[in-house]
This record gives sequence, structure tokens and C-alpha cells, in this order.
Amino acid sequence: MNNLEEKTLHSEEIYSGKIITLELHEVELPNGKQSKREIVKHPGAVAIIALTEDNKMVMVEQYRKALERTIVEIPAGKLEKGEEPASCARRELEEETGYVCESLELISSFYTSPGFSDEIIHVFLATGLTKKENAAAMDEDEFVNLEELTLKEALQYVKEQKIYDAKTIYAVQYLQLQEALTTK
Amino acid sequence: MNNLEEKTLHSEEIYSGKIITLELHEVELPNGKQSKREIVKHPGAVAIIALTEDNKMVMVEQYRKALERTIVEIPAGKLEKGEEPASCARRELEEETGYVCESLELISSFYTSPGFSDEIIHVFLATGLTKKENAAAMDEDEFVNLEELTLKEALQYVKEQKIYDAKTIYAVQYLQLQEALTTK
Repeated sequence: MNNLEEKTLHSEEIYSGKIITLELHEVELPNGKQSKREIVKHPGAVAIIALTEDNKMVMVEQYRKALERTIVEIPAGKLEKGEEPASCARRELEEETGYVCESLELISSFYTSPGFSDEIIHVFLATGLTKKENAAAMDEDEFVNLEELTLKEALQYVKEQKIYDAKTIYAVQYLQLQEALTTK
Repeated sequence: MNNLEEKTLHSEEIYSGKIITLELHEVELPNGKQSKREIVKHPGAVAIIALTEDNKMVMVEQYRKALERTIVEIPAGKLEKGEEPASCARRELEEETGYVCESLELISSFYTSPGFSDEIIHVFLATGLTKKENAAAMDEDEFVNLEELTLKEALQYVKEQKIYDAKTIYAVQYLQLQEALTTK
């Protein structure tokens, strides 16, 4: 096994914004040479596979400026400073969909783009959903359309590239796997 | 259905680097108000689920500066300018693992972090692997350790958070699903 560590020789903050911070690291490579690494710091996020009583996935259609189009995603949102992922998941679910859940289970956590970012997403499964009359409001710069999809419809959305992001494609595959395992 | 589009009022390039470009967009929201969007432009990438004759996944352990640790991932790499994803997948597989493949099939494409980046990953399944004597060399700032894992071992790595990124966790779940479907 080679030692793969890259030592930081110097780091510099290029930009610090509302959501991300960009850093440039000068590193010493395992062979002693030097290189640069561009790093996008992110507070981390949660995403929620929320299943209704009739086993539909609660989804939000949202405009993504980075893609210049809308895509359909599982509800998600950034962690606030010091916020526990599970509390964040309950908050985001309520804000984005108006649902509160009885049961919430962490099913996976993963880094989205380890090549350039430390963003981590914690994916929860939420069941026992009920609509709340006076649900907490969304962030003032967030606008979404709600959809509730069967697994079959979600798979069709993946095919049509309406569902097109890592966490949601992971979520759809997760439910496909659960179905395959239970009907074995 | 609400119109969710966010119109660009002004955009500015904050940083342009080796891999990413950071832009700041001033947008008009659907309600007429204004907001800012931080956008990380990325050339896109490929990743390869490469299966050996005895059905092991070819993996690379790599130091990720953004995480300040190594993780074990499926082979992957950035698209070069004008490069076809399939060509890129063959190139990266050879460079990172020394394997060439007979069959290469696109199984999914997804945006990794649509909230702030346009990075897309095209995931391929590569089979019919053979080791090449004089395989193409890696980028000069890349260092990896090779591993070949059974699905069971890969699932254990996920549990131990040695495998910890979206594309690799997706890949492991993909093989789990294929196994569940074929043994039904």
C-alpha cells in the first residue's frame, strides 16, 4: 500500500458566499512534487425519501440555476450551523412539502463530489406522513411544485431525465431494491 | 403548476481554475424578487463499474483533499474538452487500473450537486476485462491503490465508510439490485 496523503503547503480562501466557500490548496504529492487543489466547502445537506400511506414518493420540482432547468428531486436542504441531520430532515420535509413524519431513519450518507467538494448528504427514510395545517414556510428564495409518484412513475421520470440527480436516482434505486428483496 | 424559472439579471466569473469555474448569478425569482446563486461549473465526468471475470468490482483508493482522507471509489475521471463519455470511460479505466474492457454500457447519468454545480457523471458498466501490459499512464498528480472487491466486501466497505461517495454507493446498490433481480 502506498501512502497517498497530500500535505497542505499553503491554503487560500478565494471566495466566501451564502452557501459555499472556495479554497485553493497548494499540496505536496506522495512523490514530493507540488500541485494545486480547488476545494468547495459546503455545510452538508439532508435528503428525505418520504413515502405516503399508499407508498408514493413525495417529490419536489425545483428550478436549478446551475442546470438552467427544473428537475424533480426528493426533498432536501442544507444543514444549518450546529443542526442535527435528523432535525434538519424533519424541518426540510415540513417546509418543502407540508408533511410531518412519525418515523425517520437514516439509510445512507455520502459525499456528492469528493473530487472537489466536501458536501455530504444524509439520506433519510420518512414514513407515517401526515399533512400539517400550518406547515413551516420555505426559505424566501425557494419555489417548488409538489408531486407524488409511484415507483413505476419515478422510474419513468428517471428514463425521461426529469429525475436527474444523484441523491434522487439513488433513492429510486433504493426503493427498487427494497421491492426486489421483499418479493423474492 | 407554477413557473419556477429564475432569470439571470447579471452574472460574474469569480474564479476560473484547473478544474472548476465559480460564477455568481443575480437572478429574478418567480415572485419578482431578486436573489444570488453561486454556481460551480465543471466539465463533467465518467465513472466505471468494472467487473472482473470472477465478478469483483475494480476499485481505486485515492486521497481526496476536500475530505482530507482516502476513500475507495469506482474508477472515474473528468471529461476532456470535446471527449465522448464512452471514450473517456475507456481511457480512465486503463489509466487508473490498467484494465481494458470488451463491453462498455452506459447505465446512468446524474448531476451530483444540482444545488450549486452543473457537474454530471456518466456511469458505465465495463465487462470482459483484460490487464494491459503497457497501460496508459495516469495524470501526473494522481496516485491510487487498486483493490478488487466482491459485492459482499463492497457492502462492508460502505458500512465502514471506506466507500463514502455518491457514485460508488450508487454502483454498489446497482449490483445489489441486479443480484436481487436475477435470484428472484
